[in-house]
Amino acid sequence: MVSAGRPWTYAASGVDVDVRSKALSALLAGVRYRAPPDHGRVVSAPGHFAGLLRIGRETVAVTTDTVGTKVLLAERLGRWEEVGEDIVGVNVNDLAAMGARPAALVDTILCDRPDPAVFAGIGRGVNRGIRAARCALLGGETAVVPDLVRGIDLGGTAVGFFPRGRAPVTGARIRPGDRILGIPSHGVHANGFTLIRKLLEESSVDLAGARPGGTGPVGEELLRPTRIYTDVADALAARSEVHGLAHLSGGGVRNLVRLHPKVAFVLDTWPEPPGLFAWLQGLGRLSTEEMFQTFNMGIGFALVVSRVHLAETRRRIARAGAPDVVEIGHVERGSGVSLPALGIRYDGYA
Amino acid sequence: MVSAGRPWTYAASGVDVDVRSKALSALLAGVRYRAPPDHGRVVSAPGHFAGLLRIGRETVAVTTDTVGTKVLLAERLGRWEEVGEDIVGVNVNDLAAMGARPAALVDTILCDRPDPAVFAGIGRGVNRGIRAARCALLGGETAVVPDLVRGIDLGGTAVGFFPRGRAPVTGARIRPGDRILGIPSHGVHANGFTLIRKLLEESSVDLAGARPGGTGPVGEELLRPTRIYTDVADALAARSEVHGLAHLSGGGVRNLVRLHPKVAFVLDTWPEPPGLFAWLQGLGRLSTEEMFQTFNMGIGFALVVSRVHLAETRRRIARAGAPDVVEIGHVERGSGVSLPALGIRYDGYA
Repeated sequence: MVSAGRPWTYAASGVDVDVRSKALSALLAGVRYRAPPDHGRVVSAPGHFAGLLRIGRETVAVTTDTVGTKVLLAERLGRWEEVGEDIVGVNVNDLAAMGARPAALVDTILCDRPDPAVFAGIGRGVNRGIRAARCALLGGETAVVPDLVRGIDLGGTAVGFFPRGRAPVTGARIRPGDRILGIPSHGVHANGFTLIRKLLEESSVDLAGARPGGTGPVGEELLRPTRIYTDVADALAARSEVHGLAHLSGGGVRNLVRLHPKVAFVLDTWPEPPGLFAWLQGLGRLSTEEMFQTFNMGIGFALVVSRVHLAETRRRIARAGAPDVVEIGHVERGSGVSLPALGIRYDGYA
Repeated sequence: MVSAGRPWTYAASGVDVDVRSKALSALLAGVRYRAPPDHGRVVSAPGHFAGLLRIGRETVAVTTDTVGTKVLLAERLGRWEEVGEDIVGVNVNDLAAMGARPAALVDTILCDRPDPAVFAGIGRGVNRGIRAARCALLGGETAVVPDLVRGIDLGGTAVGFFPRGRAPVTGARIRPGDRILGIPSHGVHANGFTLIRKLLEESSVDLAGARPGGTGPVGEELLRPTRIYTDVADALAARSEVHGLAHLSGGGVRNLVRLHPKVAFVLDTWPEPPGLFAWLQGLGRLSTEEMFQTFNMGIGFALVVSRVHLAETRRRIARAGAPDVVEIGHVERGSGVSLPALGIRYDGYA
């Protein structure tokens, strides 16, 4: 734990990404079995947002994620629709980042006590999410495990596919000169909440009041559900001028590195982040470098596109539901992600 | 909490299936959206073991489940391979119950602290599981959420498919006169552990010692991984004489009702359950009725087959890896599941 007055980091809040990586490597070291090809063929897309699997004549994309500790804020506010919708958003946006069209979601709810009123709110939120993503809730698991979970955990797995004539968008076609477009987020989405909650606590923030410069209660501002980007990705993924797609969730702008290890993503026109982020940064005296690798900083989804027909691509994105798309940078020779105006550079994803 | 000397039930241990059902109904009441058909078509199989989805020319089956509180026994024994294997088993057996061939698994690990040694054990177990099920580990999520989880939760989602010429086995073709075959379990698998742990605690059972009539340490006996039935299901599912398949996990023999609501499953040749179950029953003074709806009671997977060519079907099952298959009952007109010799009858699944 850091002492008061010292700058916070995501690791200090209890989420040490390096330790998690080590544990994950230890797990994967034991997983060496390769299934025979008549049991479905894995399509290699290492480090990417979703796993790809060839089944007969179709390629399906599968991804799994949880809402994380944002549920503890939902619990405190007694509001469950937002995090219900997040179950969908955190997963289908990872499908969107492969150019896959979402088909179905299964949810996994772990709880210490199944409260029908809470579950009803979650259900309404899931419904909003699957409506935005145009997919089905195909099933789920509800486990009552009071000895394991305090409160409630919301997770899910999404399955998507590639309509006829569309291939997965992996980023392999990204090249120097490409432009990077960004679509704004709806606040912090579902990332960094272990840290956010510590900051709120340390500063005894009144969740029912507005932050300086904010309009509504800051609790509700933080709880806004993840913006769902699947319509944009679905409309653009089959086009040859779209070279890469990225969901900027946990890891922030570092997620761009997952698309291509051998180009440099230069974010030289990143827009001023919404005031919510500056306020959080101030609460925890966080470095700007820590902010950009922990939060989405105002942009939740990125598209790397050919500079040719750029204006037309932007119009297409606008028509698909994101008229607020902005240019956030370009691609150069090199590697990593940088924000030159802020003197920030990241070499890898995590 | 029940007082000492009173018979235990699964509900008294903290898992009230009725309350869970009410919460789940509240959730599902809010989920009304139906996706357009070009986003994948849901194939209706209500109440079944996995969700079915038509994508292009393929049908995929998706199911999600967790190992539950068996992980707390693993933690106490410091053994992680068994529950790692269970992540696979609890999921792929639900695919097997649809006649689907497993293609891939994604895991979700929630923990308070990622310990590389623990994760290495889990990885070795997952590897055993996917080898037995002949599928791939396609991805996963590792969340470090110390404010939400005590210890570690192991969950997963499995995706399967139907090879050319094979349709999902839903149980719709089951008819009076069919025979019910059962394949033995490897102990309690991953069900009922919230109750089991309470019984062990109440009786101060020494996990390192053998139970009366047992051979090895009872802790290890309880920890044995879920037997994986996918090879048998895969070899039999396309055959017209196979009318229904059931994974007897949580809910025990009640799972048979999920196959067909309008026939009676009469379990009149159920074999003597292994001594482990009688020992657990004695510890908690549980009723036999409670035992059969909480545990697998020695049979983990059931096949409902035509009585024609029964001997040949049994040989086929033996060749597919289960020479220990036994006849456990037959189908009559009526409804529900009964064990006539024990005077037990269940009307529904839960």
